[in-house]
Amino acid sequence: MGPEPIATLVRSSDTQALSDSLASMGTRDIEAELVRLDDDAMGVVFRLLDRDLAAQVFEILEPTYQQRLLRGLRADRVVHLIEELDPDDRVRLLDEVPAKVANRLLASLSPGELALTSTLLGYPEDSAGRLMSPEFISLREAMTVGEALAKIRRDGLDAETIYALPVLDDERHLIGVTGLRALVIADRESLVGDLMNTDVRYVSTQTDQEVAARLVSNEGLIALPVVDAEQRLVGVLTVDDAMAVLEEEESEDMALQGGRSPAREPYLAMSVFGLARTRALWLLVLIVAAALTVNVLQIFEDSLARVVALALFIPLLIDTGGNCGSQASTSMVRALAVDEVRPEDLRRVVWREARVGFMLGLMLGTAVFVPVALIWEPNLALVVALTLVTICVWATMAGAALPFFARKVNIDPAVVSAPLITTLVDATGLLIYFGYAHLILSV
Amino acid sequence: MGPEPIATLVRSSDTQALSDSLASMGTRDIEAELVRLDDDAMGVVFRLLDRDLAAQVFEILEPTYQQRLLRGLRADRVVHLIEELDPDDRVRLLDEVPAKVANRLLASLSPGELALTSTLLGYPEDSAGRLMSPEFISLREAMTVGEALAKIRRDGLDAETIYALPVLDDERHLIGVTGLRALVIADRESLVGDLMNTDVRYVSTQTDQEVAARLVSNEGLIALPVVDAEQRLVGVLTVDDAMAVLEEEESEDMALQGGRSPAREPYLAMSVFGLARTRALWLLVLIVAAALTVNVLQIFEDSLARVVALALFIPLLIDTGGNCGSQASTSMVRALAVDEVRPEDLRRVVWREARVGFMLGLMLGTAVFVPVALIWEPNLALVVALTLVTICVWATMAGAALPFFARKVNIDPAVVSAPLITTLVDATGLLIYFGYAHLILSV
Repeated sequence: MGPEPIATLVRSSDTQALSDSLASMGTRDIEAELVRLDDDAMGVVFRLLDRDLAAQVFEILEPTYQQRLLRGLRADRVVHLIEELDPDDRVRLLDEVPAKVANRLLASLSPGELALTSTLLGYPEDSAGRLMSPEFISLREAMTVGEALAKIRRDGLDAETIYALPVLDDERHLIGVTGLRALVIADRESLVGDLMNTDVRYVSTQTDQEVAARLVSNEGLIALPVVDAEQRLVGVLTVDDAMAVLEEEESEDMALQGGRSPAREPYLAMSVFGLARTRALWLLVLIVAAALTVNVLQIFEDSLARVVALALFIPLLIDTGGNCGSQASTSMVRALAVDEVRPEDLRRVVWREARVGFMLGLMLGTAVFVPVALIWEPNLALVVALTLVTICVWATMAGAALPFFARKVNIDPAVVSAPLITTLVDATGLLIYFGYAHLILSV
Repeated sequence: MGPEPIATLVRSSDTQALSDSLASMGTRDIEAELVRLDDDAMGVVFRLLDRDLAAQVFEILEPTYQQRLLRGLRADRVVHLIEELDPDDRVRLLDEVPAKVANRLLASLSPGELALTSTLLGYPEDSAGRLMSPEFISLREAMTVGEALAKIRRDGLDAETIYALPVLDDERHLIGVTGLRALVIADRESLVGDLMNTDVRYVSTQTDQEVAARLVSNEGLIALPVVDAEQRLVGVLTVDDAMAVLEEEESEDMALQGGRSPAREPYLAMSVFGLARTRALWLLVLIVAAALTVNVLQIFEDSLARVVALALFIPLLIDTGGNCGSQASTSMVRALAVDEVRPEDLRRVVWREARVGFMLGLMLGTAVFVPVALIWEPNLALVVALTLVTICVWATMAGAALPFFARKVNIDPAVVSAPLITTLVDATGLLIYFGYAHLILSV
């Protein structure tokens, strides 16, 4: 079933054919088709799904689409869909909708689901508390494997995962973790306490989501326990939610590296005006920074008037400086994010980058010297080549160092993104260029 | 235990204190410390670990560090470490080491492990076949839950995962998947056939690793079945391996977006010369592309000589064009990668971007017009403002369209990265600028 059929069937209003077509698709396929339709068509298709399938599709939709769908549905269907969501997914939806709608939705929940949801809503945005599932199965040290399995069979249906099983003491403090695998393989009479791993990784409800998700990824965990300020277990963060967070974080870093504010919605879901808004602020910041280059050039207007050929190399020089700087800064943003490099490595890194920049500058300077010397003149070629070497060293050092400083003042290093370092290096690059021109060409 | 102690203890050669310190650390902590040491110190620390702990730490090290460690170890320890690795991790290491070393290592394997390894090595690089684990537990439709659990208890220790359980027919064709969770909760007399999900996602051994990993992530799977050309199950791809692939892919895309070739090793593990090499090619490509700007400016050298003020705005204009283009291209690279946008959306996307570019250009043109008109003169301001509007429209359209074309000719869209689009837009931006200057200022 390609993407055309569904869109075509909606346009042709052939409800029967549309129903048949949907019946043959899995939930993920239906979701993939839904998000490519406009709001009205999305509503039409969604209403054709049966109650349970609709709830399954609804659960995997992005909150922005969930919100759009809810607008067109009758109140009783809305309540059903919201009740069926996992508490953590529900919280993500409630974060998106206007406060008035959120309150109405909360009011419609059953007391049990309301309690779960309210707890999660109490944790700070982007914290592990918001992302975790409060529905987990915990074991006791003194349980036998048989008792543990019995408990899992009894309560397992509602839990978000039963593959990672936290072990608690009487005060609900986390003392270890075991896995369903260990229980299934072990003897029924063994004690949970003998099967558990006590060297447990866990995070607090206040831990940043990305930090928690990266821990899940690096350690290859199925679920990560989340504890409150008193070290009591309050939830587990599962690997699928961790993957979603890392995916989102990746989108954010890529946006910042490309000089955009991160968008909360998929590309096609955003209006043209919304897209322009995610980009406008950065463009304005960057053009103000670029205004510095106008000022610098103004200082050297007389030199330019005397040797117009100097102007010819301005784009080439500032492009190269920007490229060197963004190479260094993007590699450092990434290395810091995945903990390959730590804040204390600053001096080591800058010294490395200075040598890298020198090698690159030497290579580029040599490559450019001969053609410029032949077409124009050797002295101009010397100015351009020396500028390239100096700019490369300076740009790699600055590009590598800036993410460290950003981190120190608690700015996401990705914000000190390629376009910003490019623009900042431009003005200094021009100073270097005209400095050499003054020395060598005496202008 | 901070990072200093280990490095300090190695320098002080206090073996006893070092051993004590290591004994108190988990495998992940030891790994994190190891990769920050130089090769000699790494060898010293590693040799202090007991056999089993060493094997555990070895397994989670990146192949590049594994290779370095092996060089300094005695042959019998090398054999032990290689035997203990999972087949898929072993293949990743063998890909890294020189062919001679790989052959020697292969020769040292027991026949069983050798067979597993050779099969994996037969699949193309970056394919799901290379990444999958051939050690899985499969069930039959006609088994009872009790029989299935008995099989899992018997064979579960060697399997990479027992949480996702493929169900096969007599010819080993994949007919469904069930989970340990379903089995544990179900009645012992139920049939596996009644508990399995037949709407199964799977990939072939030839499927690209990133495609397979993204499927695992999007569907929230614990493991993804991998089948051969005859649809017979040959392995499973687990979520932790999928996360590692996505993490690596993210590093690659970020590198390309920052104008670097992707590095196979962590930042601090690379030599200065190695770092320079990952960046040199792109810088050369970009400086050749930038040479176009020199040619364009040469055409307009007379205009520049007459109105030197025109030169002042060159960096600002080309920076802005580059920023608009890279905003559009990075957002499209990402949208295509996560399937938010598909190849058939090209026209829709370009038309959206044209309108986004027009809005942004209008904003920037207005912002720049007044100061330039006041400090220089209104006609020059008009030239600059009109250039900004035109460049923004052109750059967003080109930036958004290029990743589509890259994909069509089977180049990774991330290669058409921000620096490349920037450099390409520069030359055309200058043409636009001097075109308006010719019309309005008659130069």
